Amino acid sequence: MQQIPKTMLAATLFGPGDLRTITKPVPQPGPGEVLIRVEACAICATDLLILDHRLPGQPPFDGTFTPGHEYSGTIVSLGKGVDEFRVGDRAAVEVHKGCGRCENCIRGLYTACLNYGNLTKGHRANGLTVDGGFAQYVVAHINTVYRLPDHISFAEATLITTAGTVLYGIDRLGGFLAGETVAVTGPGPIGLMAVQLAKALGARVLLTGTRESRLQVGREVGADVTINVNETNPVDEVRQLTGGKGADVVLECSGAANAAQEAVEMVKKGGKILLAGFFKDPVTVDLSRLISNNLVIYGARGEGGRNVGRALALMAQGRLQAKPLITHYFPLPEINRAIKTFAQRLEGAIKVIVEPQKGGKLEDGSQSGD
Amino acid sequence: MQQIPKTMLAATLFGPGDLRTITKPVPQPGPGEVLIRVEACAICATDLLILDHRLPGQPPFDGTFTPGHEYSGTIVSLGKGVDEFRVGDRAAVEVHKGCGRCENCIRGLYTACLNYGNLTKGHRANGLTVDGGFAQYVVAHINTVYRLPDHISFAEATLITTAGTVLYGIDRLGGFLAGETVAVTGPGPIGLMAVQLAKALGARVLLTGTRESRLQVGREVGADVTINVNETNPVDEVRQLTGGKGADVVLECSGAANAAQEAVEMVKKGGKILLAGFFKDPVTVDLSRLISNNLVIYGARGEGGRNVGRALALMAQGRLQAKPLITHYFPLPEINRAIKTFAQRLEGAIKVIVEPQKGGKLEDGSQSGD
Amino acid sequence: MQQIPKTMLAATLFGPGDLRTITKPVPQPGPGEVLIRVEACAICATDLLILDHRLPGQPPFDGTFTPGHEYSGTIVSLGKGVDEFRVGDRAAVEVHKGCGRCENCIRGLYTACLNYGNLTKGHRANGLTVDGGFAQYVVAHINTVYRLPDHISFAEATLITTAGTVLYGIDRLGGFLAGETVAVTGPGPIGLMAVQLAKALGARVLLTGTRESRLQVGREVGADVTINVNETNPVDEVRQLTGGKGADVVLECSGAANAAQEAVEMVKKGGKILLAGFFKDPVTVDLSRLISNNLVIYGARGEGGRNVGRALALMAQGRLQAKPLITHYFPLPEINRAIKTFAQRLEGAIKVIVEPQKGGKLEDGSQSGD
Amino acid sequence: MQQIPKTMLAATLFGPGDLRTITKPVPQPGPGEVLIRVEACAICATDLLILDHRLPGQPPFDGTFTPGHEYSGTIVSLGKGVDEFRVGDRAAVEVHKGCGRCENCIRGLYTACLNYGNLTKGHRANGLTVDGGFAQYVVAHINTVYRLPDHISFAEATLITTAGTVLYGIDRLGGFLAGETVAVTGPGPIGLMAVQLAKALGARVLLTGTRESRLQVGREVGADVTINVNETNPVDEVRQLTGGKGADVVLECSGAANAAQEAVEMVKKGGKILLAGFFKDPVTVDLSRLISNNLVIYGARGEGGRNVGRALALMAQGRLQAKPLITHYFPLPEINRAIKTFAQRLEGAIKVIVEPQKGGKLEDGSQSGD
Repeated sequence: MQQIPKTMLAATLFGPGDLRTITKPVPQPGPGEVLIRVEACAICATDLLILDHRLPGQPPFDGTFTPGHEYSGTIVSLGKGVDEFRVGDRAAVEVHKGCGRCENCIRGLYTACLNYGNLTKGHRANGLTVDGGFAQYVVAHINTVYRLPDHISFAEATLITTAGTVLYGIDRLGGFLAGETVAVTGPGPIGLMAVQLAKALGARVLLTGTRESRLQVGREVGADVTINVNETNPVDEVRQLTGGKGADVVLECSGAANAAQEAVEMVKKGGKILLAGFFKDPVTVDLSRLISNNLVIYGARGEGGRNVGRALALMAQGRLQAKPLITHYFPLPEINRAIKTFAQRLEGAIKVIVEPQKGGKLEDGSQSGD
Repeated sequence: MQQIPKTMLAATLFGPGDLRTITKPVPQPGPGEVLIRVEACAICATDLLILDHRLPGQPPFDGTFTPGHEYSGTIVSLGKGVDEFRVGDRAAVEVHKGCGRCENCIRGLYTACLNYGNLTKGHRANGLTVDGGFAQYVVAHINTVYRLPDHISFAEATLITTAGTVLYGIDRLGGFLAGETVAVTGPGPIGLMAVQLAKALGARVLLTGTRESRLQVGREVGADVTINVNETNPVDEVRQLTGGKGADVVLECSGAANAAQEAVEMVKKGGKILLAGFFKDPVTVDLSRLISNNLVIYGARGEGGRNVGRALALMAQGRLQAKPLITHYFPLPEINRAIKTFAQRLEGAIKVIVEPQKGGKLEDGSQSGD
Repeated sequence: MQQIPKTMLAATLFGPGDLRTITKPVPQPGPGEVLIRVEACAICATDLLILDHRLPGQPPFDGTFTPGHEYSGTIVSLGKGVDEFRVGDRAAVEVHKGCGRCENCIRGLYTACLNYGNLTKGHRANGLTVDGGFAQYVVAHINTVYRLPDHISFAEATLITTAGTVLYGIDRLGGFLAGETVAVTGPGPIGLMAVQLAKALGARVLLTGTRESRLQVGREVGADVTINVNETNPVDEVRQLTGGKGADVVLECSGAANAAQEAVEMVKKGGKILLAGFFKDPVTVDLSRLISNNLVIYGARGEGGRNVGRALALMAQGRLQAKPLITHYFPLPEINRAIKTFAQRLEGAIKVIVEPQKGGKLEDGSQSGD
Repeated sequence: MQQIPKTMLAATLFGPGDLRTITKPVPQPGPGEVLIRVEACAICATDLLILDHRLPGQPPFDGTFTPGHEYSGTIVSLGKGVDEFRVGDRAAVEVHKGCGRCENCIRGLYTACLNYGNLTKGHRANGLTVDGGFAQYVVAHINTVYRLPDHISFAEATLITTAGTVLYGIDRLGGFLAGETVAVTGPGPIGLMAVQLAKALGARVLLTGTRESRLQVGREVGADVTINVNETNPVDEVRQLTGGKGADVVLECSGAANAAQEAVEMVKKGGKILLAGFFKDPVTVDLSRLISNNLVIYGARGEGGRNVGRALALMAQGRLQAKPLITHYFPLPEINRAIKTFAQRLEGAIKVIVEPQKGGKLEDGSQSGD
């Protein structure tokens, strides 16, 4: 095992949009925690919000907080009482560790913890309320850590959070998609994972989107049919492809303003809708249709119900491909370029990975590396 | 047993809003059906839509179709093969009889029948797609009929449909409310039944509304707290009454434009919302909150899952009071006055009952009676 | 389309164990029914009971009743009102058509119909209470018929009933096996389908059994680990393979006397057990373990919840292999030899198929054929 | 607030059946814990096992361990970080506090904690693995503590554990009993609570038992019908009372050897059985009936899912009566007499309460008191 250094490179937030790669002390794992040497950390749309303004529970913009919640790496040290893992274990993570003492956590709804952001009571959200993975080392509570099989690369493992989020939503709406027709709306990273998860669980998948290049990736990862909404009315198309009935399940992954309305129109009577993409603003929907058509709309926060473990198993079985979604890699000192690439979808960017152990120029021109 | 006459009084639709009490033949029950002598039929908000414009599957405005779906009476004749009931049984009803052959019906989702309105395939909705209870006699399929205990009056029994609708919604969201805090929004007939059902199942109930008189009825039928939204912000109040957490469940019964948004704001993280009141128009809601707060919104069509039977049991146990909700009675020939009273909430009208066996002046001035 | 003949070959029961291939009239489909030209009909363990003694609802031993419930073929004629299928459609089937009027059927629990065997009220169980597929033609109600994709052979399609039974059980216990460890006990036709279904849904599968040849088939169809119970204690082995925790789910498919006890011992705290194999006699089990370990034991009758459709989709996706389970084919006149081969597991028999359209010697020596 | 003394009376175990009331230090609450001044602690059948032989995780027989898990009292001191309660709050408790880090606890299945008995990892079971309520003071983790309304007496509150256990079982089998027929077998403390819970949730209740005096109590607390199994065959009777169908749900509370078999015979097709009473030995059951009749058997460990809170709400609403079940009170020094009274059902004993704050002679003849 390598020696653990005293200090490390980490990106920290000095103000809105002001993320800098600095040197800070390597943290120590407390009871029930492990220290992970971060090999890869993906950028998520939520990171853009975290950079821009402070989310509830987020630490102040004072140059100490390190974001990054889609990371993977190697466990290099164990906190007190931890025998669930060993030093040297490869690890993937999820975001939420509930307080364990509110009525939601006690009943297993830990991503809806009533003490969210309350560190004293034991809640922590990796990269949201406590330091995350845009650093060379990070501490994580074992409740958020999963053993990563050898044949899944660290980069691939960063997508397990995305997969876990969608799978938790699928879990909440019943989890039994075999033989059903599932419409996935929006071929972003979430949608492309949704396609694969629905396929992995035995569904027929119809994917809608606006960009042909993304729909092409959708077909590569398993969508049975893709629908370009610039060319066709997706509601009509989904109905036509289902003998007029509509989709059994709609997994809304676009966050588009009209997506909720389209979802209630393209789903079957008695069907289910999952919202997996945040909407920018409040949306207008004919909610009476929920009543007349016996519908349910599910929201799912984070990767609850230990679904990261389930998603990891599917990835280990070869049913979830992360590689077609990973388009860019950057070393940690180039994190701002990485973020720009992701945010502006430069060069067809889908998922962008930061690799904290890889050498690279600090953005001020100096050199970093291990 | 009384003789069954050849003809009867029945209200039929001759055009939008043109409902007339005429004489028409008493129908014959087919296989699996019974003939019911109607003693009471309540007016429902849906009837106003049926009178005004044709709902999907509704027969034409040609003077033949009799609406009315919240009725009760006595079984006077049995169709072929019926041994589930006896002549003389008192009966309450629900609306929907599924086709029994579509994938939804086969799986028990008969109020979401994919052959809705298709009489040939076996679907029928009492008072919506086939003749209903604004008549002296009506045919109903046994799947929609329940034996009515002697100590529940016919008038009370008409409210079982309202109760069954809400209870089906509660069933869909899990059915286990004991010890939970339930916010009921809107003290109309649906909301006042929702209050009682939530209480009957062991919940603490907070009722919101605008009319003090209705809130007063709410307290009489069991609401623990009432909140007049003209005086207080209901979201703040519900949060304050739940230690900041929000209600475990919101039963939205108002159909008010802002009700859906208020529901997502007043419900607890991880909580559930039932939509039980139709919205006049599409509504604007911050649906992202479903994601960030792990919420589910349920719609429930009709009185599925045999919940009329469950509601009837609760009424028989004395846990559902219909009487405080019944404000007016009219004979059948005065049905238009009855409808106006209900629609315009004249004289504090809540539920208005038509009694087809009670004598009364035909609205053209002639005399009717049994 | 071929002409439909007036008469056909069919195997009928003249007494316990006295099954004869005779000529009888080709039946006519009634309303909601179709006539199927039977291409393949598999022998099931239940058939052995049907031949031996009469099950509840089974017709008398008078030479008229034709068993056989795992069949497939081509639709050659439609009963009144059927537009769900077309003549020429290839078809797979399930057994149960509920009465549609009892409280269980109305709520979707049609394999637990309270009017089981009551033909007047509309219940029918293909090959159990009404004529089945050991004949050249058979009538089936559309509720029990599924369109068979072209690339699934008729012989393969006969295993859809087996698959549907297990999948219904999995449905009942939640349907969400992704990432879970599932122990399948008993590598018979049911167990070998259970292995494949659990794999198809994303589980890790441990298969226990006594015959190495069957365990070998288990590995071929996807079992991750096989455990020969003659060599190892399966409870210890399952616990050892799960880090001491036990299997998340046990699918008991052996019907062995000690299997229930072993299931409660090898399942995880909070886990679930499905009974999918009938026990010959009452069994002795430490049921207190259900309490102390928070367990649930599910029974599942038939292929409820439209799970034949789901299983068919999985087969169409190439995730269920029927071929490794099909070991023998016989023409209809040799049905008694077919049954003996299946019952005594001659020549390594697993599933044995009867093909009613294939020529063959009548067992009395005369010649048959189409 | 009273001063907290340094020492207290407590019953501790010196050997099998050797329980002595001694003086020991008053414990200190740790982080997340509270100190409760015990006012009442009921004797449970599980206590008899704890006294007799050591259950898994139980401390050694060395005179230090204090059993007693059905207790109530007043919070007199708060551990670090506790703001969920205040000193002076009246409190009821449940038994299990999960480790919070195993996969079962994280998902809310804390009574099936995989680290049961592992104090280091955070699991604790009041009165089973850590000190309980047969003492004047006891420490409890806040996850196991509920605020007790003023109008419920401390003695009544001790029955909340019994109620919570049954309610957790009802929760596990769906929680929606309104309008269903529930057979409760066995009128012991568990059965008599089951009767009340089923009634509180809107069911019709049939209670079976052997002792007329207990059945009489059953009728007093709400059973609609009681069946003396010494006089009538309970299976026949339940079927007769349900029109031949059987009970929708059976709550087995007797632990009698033949009870499981009777349960599978008296339940409706598609029905559910809860095992709530431990069986002395393995039992023999026709488990094939689970398959042919589509049944499920649920076990439920402890008072999971925060059901003590739900039960407490029902008791506060006046729907659960504890008083008819409480037959005896003893001061702490007379605990051995209390146990004998309970174990041997002396003087018609049902629930026997120990009151640690009430004065009383130590059993060696010396005097105790506060």
